[in-house]
Amino acid sequence: MRQTFVSQLFNSIADAGRDLLDRGNNKPRNQTIEGLCRDLMTQKGEASGMALAREVVESWKGLADAEKLAYLKFLAEDFSVDDGEIAKAVAAYQKEPSDTSLSRLSAVLESPRQELMRRINFAPGGTAAIVDMRKFLVSVLRDHPDLVKVDQDIRHLLSSWFNRGFLELEQINWRTPANILEKLIEYEAVHEIDGWEDLRRRLDDDRRCFAFFHPALPDEPLIFVEVALVKGLSSSVQPLLHKERTKLDPMKTDTAIFYSISNCQEGLKGISFGNFLIKQVVAELTVEFPNLKHFSTLSPIPGFMKWFAGTRGAVGKLSAGKATKVRKLLQEDGWFRDEEKAASVKEPLEHLVAHYLVNEKSRDRPLDPVSRFHLGNGARLERINWLGDTSDNGIRQSAGVLANYYYSLKDIEKNHEAYANERKVVASSAIHSLVKSV
Amino acid sequence: MRQTFVSQLFNSIADAGRDLLDRGNNKPRNQTIEGLCRDLMTQKGEASGMALAREVVESWKGLADAEKLAYLKFLAEDFSVDDGEIAKAVAAYQKEPSDTSLSRLSAVLESPRQELMRRINFAPGGTAAIVDMRKFLVSVLRDHPDLVKVDQDIRHLLSSWFNRGFLELEQINWRTPANILEKLIEYEAVHEIDGWEDLRRRLDDDRRCFAFFHPALPDEPLIFVEVALVKGLSSSVQPLLHKERTKLDPMKTDTAIFYSISNCQEGLKGISFGNFLIKQVVAELTVEFPNLKHFSTLSPIPGFMKWFAGTRGAVGKLSAGKATKVRKLLQEDGWFRDEEKAASVKEPLEHLVAHYLVNEKSRDRPLDPVSRFHLGNGARLERINWLGDTSDNGIRQSAGVLANYYYSLKDIEKNHEAYANERKVVASSAIHSLVKSV
Amino acid sequence: MRQTFVSQLFNSIADAGRDLLDRGNNKPRNQTIEGLCRDLMTQKGEASGMALAREVVESWKGLADAEKLAYLKFLAEDFSVDDGEIAKAVAAYQKEPSDTSLSRLSAVLESPRQELMRRINFAPGGTAAIVDMRKFLVSVLRDHPDLVKVDQDIRHLLSSWFNRGFLELEQINWRTPANILEKLIEYEAVHEIDGWEDLRRRLDDDRRCFAFFHPALPDEPLIFVEVALVKGLSSSVQPLLHKERTKLDPMKTDTAIFYSISNCQEGLKGISFGNFLIKQVVAELTVEFPNLKHFSTLSPIPGFMKWFAGTRGAVGKLSAGKATKVRKLLQEDGWFRDEEKAASVKEPLEHLVAHYLVNEKSRDRPLDPVSRFHLGNGARLERINWLGDTSDNGIRQSAGVLANYYYSLKDIEKNHEAYANERKVVASSAIHSLVKSV
Amino acid sequence: MRQTFVSQLFNSIADAGRDLLDRGNNKPRNQTIEGLCRDLMTQKGEASGMALAREVVESWKGLADAEKLAYLKFLAEDFSVDDGEIAKAVAAYQKEPSDTSLSRLSAVLESPRQELMRRINFAPGGTAAIVDMRKFLVSVLRDHPDLVKVDQDIRHLLSSWFNRGFLELEQINWRTPANILEKLIEYEAVHEIDGWEDLRRRLDDDRRCFAFFHPALPDEPLIFVEVALVKGLSSSVQPLLHKERTKLDPMKTDTAIFYSISNCQEGLKGISFGNFLIKQVVAELTVEFPNLKHFSTLSPIPGFMKWFAGTRGAVGKLSAGKATKVRKLLQEDGWFRDEEKAASVKEPLEHLVAHYLVNEKSRDRPLDPVSRFHLGNGARLERINWLGDTSDNGIRQSAGVLANYYYSLKDIEKNHEAYANERKVVASSAIHSLVKSV
Repeated sequence: MRQTFVSQLFNSIADAGRDLLDRGNNKPRNQTIEGLCRDLMTQKGEASGMALAREVVESWKGLADAEKLAYLKFLAEDFSVDDGEIAKAVAAYQKEPSDTSLSRLSAVLESPRQELMRRINFAPGGTAAIVDMRKFLVSVLRDHPDLVKVDQDIRHLLSSWFNRGFLELEQINWRTPANILEKLIEYEAVHEIDGWEDLRRRLDDDRRCFAFFHPALPDEPLIFVEVALVKGLSSSVQPLLHKERTKLDPMKTDTAIFYSISNCQEGLKGISFGNFLIKQVVAELTVEFPNLKHFSTLSPIPGFMKWFAGTRGAVGKLSAGKATKVRKLLQEDGWFRDEEKAASVKEPLEHLVAHYLVNEKSRDRPLDPVSRFHLGNGARLERINWLGDTSDNGIRQSAGVLANYYYSLKDIEKNHEAYANERKVVASSAIHSLVKSV
Repeated sequence: MRQTFVSQLFNSIADAGRDLLDRGNNKPRNQTIEGLCRDLMTQKGEASGMALAREVVESWKGLADAEKLAYLKFLAEDFSVDDGEIAKAVAAYQKEPSDTSLSRLSAVLESPRQELMRRINFAPGGTAAIVDMRKFLVSVLRDHPDLVKVDQDIRHLLSSWFNRGFLELEQINWRTPANILEKLIEYEAVHEIDGWEDLRRRLDDDRRCFAFFHPALPDEPLIFVEVALVKGLSSSVQPLLHKERTKLDPMKTDTAIFYSISNCQEGLKGISFGNFLIKQVVAELTVEFPNLKHFSTLSPIPGFMKWFAGTRGAVGKLSAGKATKVRKLLQEDGWFRDEEKAASVKEPLEHLVAHYLVNEKSRDRPLDPVSRFHLGNGARLERINWLGDTSDNGIRQSAGVLANYYYSLKDIEKNHEAYANERKVVASSAIHSLVKSV
Repeated sequence: MRQTFVSQLFNSIADAGRDLLDRGNNKPRNQTIEGLCRDLMTQKGEASGMALAREVVESWKGLADAEKLAYLKFLAEDFSVDDGEIAKAVAAYQKEPSDTSLSRLSAVLESPRQELMRRINFAPGGTAAIVDMRKFLVSVLRDHPDLVKVDQDIRHLLSSWFNRGFLELEQINWRTPANILEKLIEYEAVHEIDGWEDLRRRLDDDRRCFAFFHPALPDEPLIFVEVALVKGLSSSVQPLLHKERTKLDPMKTDTAIFYSISNCQEGLKGISFGNFLIKQVVAELTVEFPNLKHFSTLSPIPGFMKWFAGTRGAVGKLSAGKATKVRKLLQEDGWFRDEEKAASVKEPLEHLVAHYLVNEKSRDRPLDPVSRFHLGNGARLERINWLGDTSDNGIRQSAGVLANYYYSLKDIEKNHEAYANERKVVASSAIHSLVKSV
Repeated sequence: MRQTFVSQLFNSIADAGRDLLDRGNNKPRNQTIEGLCRDLMTQKGEASGMALAREVVESWKGLADAEKLAYLKFLAEDFSVDDGEIAKAVAAYQKEPSDTSLSRLSAVLESPRQELMRRINFAPGGTAAIVDMRKFLVSVLRDHPDLVKVDQDIRHLLSSWFNRGFLELEQINWRTPANILEKLIEYEAVHEIDGWEDLRRRLDDDRRCFAFFHPALPDEPLIFVEVALVKGLSSSVQPLLHKERTKLDPMKTDTAIFYSISNCQEGLKGISFGNFLIKQVVAELTVEFPNLKHFSTLSPIPGFMKWFAGTRGAVGKLSAGKATKVRKLLQEDGWFRDEEKAASVKEPLEHLVAHYLVNEKSRDRPLDPVSRFHLGNGARLERINWLGDTSDNGIRQSAGVLANYYYSLKDIEKNHEAYANERKVVASSAIHSLVKSV
């Protein structure tokens, strides 16, 4: 169960063993990653696939950023589809559309990059290397639009490999190995974890944490969610994270609050597992705690302040003057600690947030990404919480306001359809009241 | 370590949990697998993907053969590409070839079947169900050529998912769970395993057995190889499998004989891992037994007798009369137990087998599938063994002759290239002598 | 999870490592087990305990029976208490009884054999070797009463080490490693297991099997119980074991029948875990199957025929003549297959068995060992079953009659006290009726 | 592999299951631990052992210190041997010394406390509770000498249960579960671990940490050792623990330095596994790193300053005046940071430490406990290191001096014998030189 030196030993043994598979005398010295990739796609690759793939993976790890970029450009140029072949296949298809000509067309439309990546994946650590390639790729994509097609290919493969059916849900707790726990500290994206003591509190008996893992990345959580078991819907995150909070008997709670969901792998950007995670965790919790009646998030509203700062004139039901006044006050340092000031903006802000979440859209979908995610999953916007997060980050993003999205299992499908077909924001009557007037 | 009732319990818990994800009141009764698949591809599928996928998987398991066929036809017809869309995309590409028009063309060329399979895979047991669908599909393909495109799509997905990087090599021995061991008995394709006692002998201290597993099919070996640790190249399989053979101290052996390689999953037909398996096992054995100097197969020649039966006139260096004589004698029952008869055909048969393996080709490649496999991996045809397998099956397939293919790690790449470029059958000088004269 | 070659490798590594602990140049060649044991008890043993202990263990394994006996005699003579020291300590205690003199007396009363065994146990496999020593010892004890004190010492240690708190309950099923399953076949003591197919049937979905293991003997079950989940109390074992029986849905059963309990380790004779096993298994089953209402054995009556054969004159309520008649008929081959004969002895036999179980005692306790065991655990003798086991063994032991002992959790303590204080055989009214008349 | 919620779930299931074993209606409310223990020793205990044992364990956990003391006194008084029975057995033995009378005497000399503890151990967590009882007992023993006999009994049992043969050596590294790692931070007794970052450094690639575990206390290390892989014998601990030290390639080191050994369980005081641990770790390291040539400790000298402070007049070869001068200087704050002062005492101190380690004895054995331990294991006192530990603790204990004890596997037995027979302190010639003159 616990880690002994055997598993490490095994790695070095596997290394020793694999050396046998290395290409011995035939192995040219100082080959570039580009040269290795070419070999991997030829007969050398068929004979010595795993050994070559290992060299590519090792080589990638040693590249400087400029070399990484050069490598990706190389993939874009030298491993793309063959335009001449496509033209031929298109012509053949047009002449006689058939399963055969279609099949041929499909074949030439798949770039050799995909096969290359499949072969790189033969190596131990191959999947991790490819995820890392995409992480780098995503970070330079905006400045290098010629890499979009490389991104499409890699993303296509990763989507296939990280199919939900291959993911394993694991509970994370204080018995989890430290090398995984430290990644939670590193990856937490919503409410920063302040060291090991804070982490430990988040794994207490009345807390739960779950993550998805993929068999090929056993030490890397893909996404994780932190849950607090409480009585009644939480309206504020501070008490949940407080150092000296009173622990509850989890068998006596009635509500599971999902207060933080963090994606861990930038290389898997755009490949979504979040909705599966929430639903699966709801299922697990229901079995462990039959006493739970409610499942809800306590979520940030990351886009609110940015949006509000960009408005002009009247906003929602707020007059231009009133809106300006609110905007101005929110620029004062520590306004929320001044009871009077805070009281003066409470009502207009609650209205504004409700309006923002319900009415403000971009291409028919809610402007706020968190809202988009939960509504898209079939949740209901349940409540907004005044000064629910008074951390620097909370004030900056949303003037301290947080939202509850409520997961009612029997309504998920209905809500999702309403959202998908009519782009309807399913919200509680309380939210609708806030939207209507101020 | 050992199986306790917890894991079973966990299954029933997971069931209970997943029921929560089932689609409650919205769930129509008695839905067909076709209806479920349609739902899975719509907004219902987005909201309740896993629950729907489970229903598809359960439904598939309950189908009769006729219903399975009808379902596959349905996939062929209703989930194919859209010809109209393709025509439009082809036209657009011809008008202006660009990354965008290419991308669009690629998109419409991917049939909805692939997305459907990805979604079915969400379910627990989804991968196993898809492998099972393909097993059935492969068995009816010859009579239903309209299913070829369905096969292409499923095979494409399975190739991606069963990438060698995701496979785990496991040693199989007498401490392996019985539910896996019984699959060896079931799947052994070369030298039938005669019950548990025979199996146990094949897992003795001077034997090794390795298999590839995929994380999504933890109880199902994909392919396995049986190895005997011996002194010198084995020429006959009977002594290796004999009930009362003397066991050797494996640290005092010098040769690993791969005497049986069996693919287990018909649903993965055409997705090859055999070459990886052999090389990986060589690596593992070298670490465990530094005393091993030689790695060789003792292989059947499954196509020889069929080929020989189909020849007419002179064959190889054999005159027509001589060949007819040999052919006739081989039809006699138990010819090989009659020393005189056996002696009379030994030389001509050895010549014929060598000729068959070295010279007889189909589309430039060796006629014999086992030979094709090992030569393609970079092995060398080393030796042929008179009466190496006198079982019914051995006599029927190859008049009892067996072949050794020798894996010399330093030559693998070179051999493979010679084979791939020049279709050269790399063989020992002994083999070449046999070919030259009789 | 599954066994890979790493664990075996680890053993050879551990061997290599331990060689370092071996006593190098100081190591005398060809030392006898007696010499090794002497060394182990001296300063050599303090410095090189584990290495010496290993040599003792290895040495024991290689001994012939005569050498084993000689070794045990050596333990009896050379590692016994020191009579002179005892006399002194007794005198000192009598002179002045105090904690100190008591402590001294205790110390000299513990034989050096115990310390020797503790040191032998340092070795890997030490516990197994000691259990094996006792197995041999038990087999020769009757003929060598001078070894009783050796047996007392070893048994004392084993009782301490095999404390129930250190045992692990494991479920045995078809996913259990084959090396453990084959031990079930070997050790089954009540209803012989007829090969792997029979074993597999006994591990079906409506069957359960549990065993106790000790961490120092991970591959050796200590005791195991086989359970059938059925509807209503089973009266006969044949249908339970039948090749073509209809399987039940275990969630629809109401009764767990413990039809076989087998001790596996003769070396642990007299160290009882059976009562813990039954109660623990009842607890596990109740959680897995809330539908279970009844827990009962279907037990052999191993002493009945032997007892009956030894009776003379009137037996129970049976006249001497009648008893003789019954006795005579039971000597006929296959009497139970002759309906008429069987019918003629049914009533008298049922009376006799009930009488035997309820009234026949030795030193106040039931004559029958199985009865003694279950009544001692707090079970109730519930029912006897005419022709419940018509196997050769069943007919020979008890004329085919079986007994149900019923475990009612709420009565266990009460029943046990009644049995312990008043030697009362707690039995159902049906049994009492059978006893009263014939 | 990783912890999922199943294991926790299992606990609650086991609880549920065990409730069935609880004594139902017969269970008296609010029973004291003393009452429970009495029940456990009667027929109630035989019938419902595990349930009663659980209640004792739960009860113990809830006791205040005064109650714990009262409970131990109760054990001392009510569960002691029966003096009358002893007198009778002594008389019987004197009258006729025989195996039988001896056996009887042994039996009455074993206090019922031992049987009680064996029964408490039936409970889950029983072993941990008994270790905890002894921890408390050890802490009050000095003030309550009437508890010595209780201590003897518990210690006797724990010695038997924690036999080295039952312990498992585990490597501790950064993949070890956090709940175990935090115990290292808690238990480190030599060089305090300053939080998780410090711990992580101590588990780096060129560090090793090993611990013994017992199967009944899976989350509790019993003893652990920290090892640094270095080049040449380390003379100072600060560089080993430094935040910004340069890591070495462990395959290029030649020496393993055992720089910290910590016992974790006060309840196991006096039950030694340290010597096994060191030797076993040497064996493991030799296999993992064939490059290691030397195995040595870098050890504190905890008793030096206390001893030196207690000397008067001339000490070793030091005149009374010189000794007084040294003693006085060492009382100055920060003397070791003043180069001149430090230089002035270096020589006399090195002499004094060598003298202390080699010549100062108590009852024939070295005064210093760490020296006693390593010499007793067969190590050689190799070197003393000036200002090897300048932490507060190092200065306070031994004026900053550290010692290397060298483990030469081929000399261990010889050294141990010399030490055991002649109380000889095996030391290097350098040490002997230091002792001879100043």
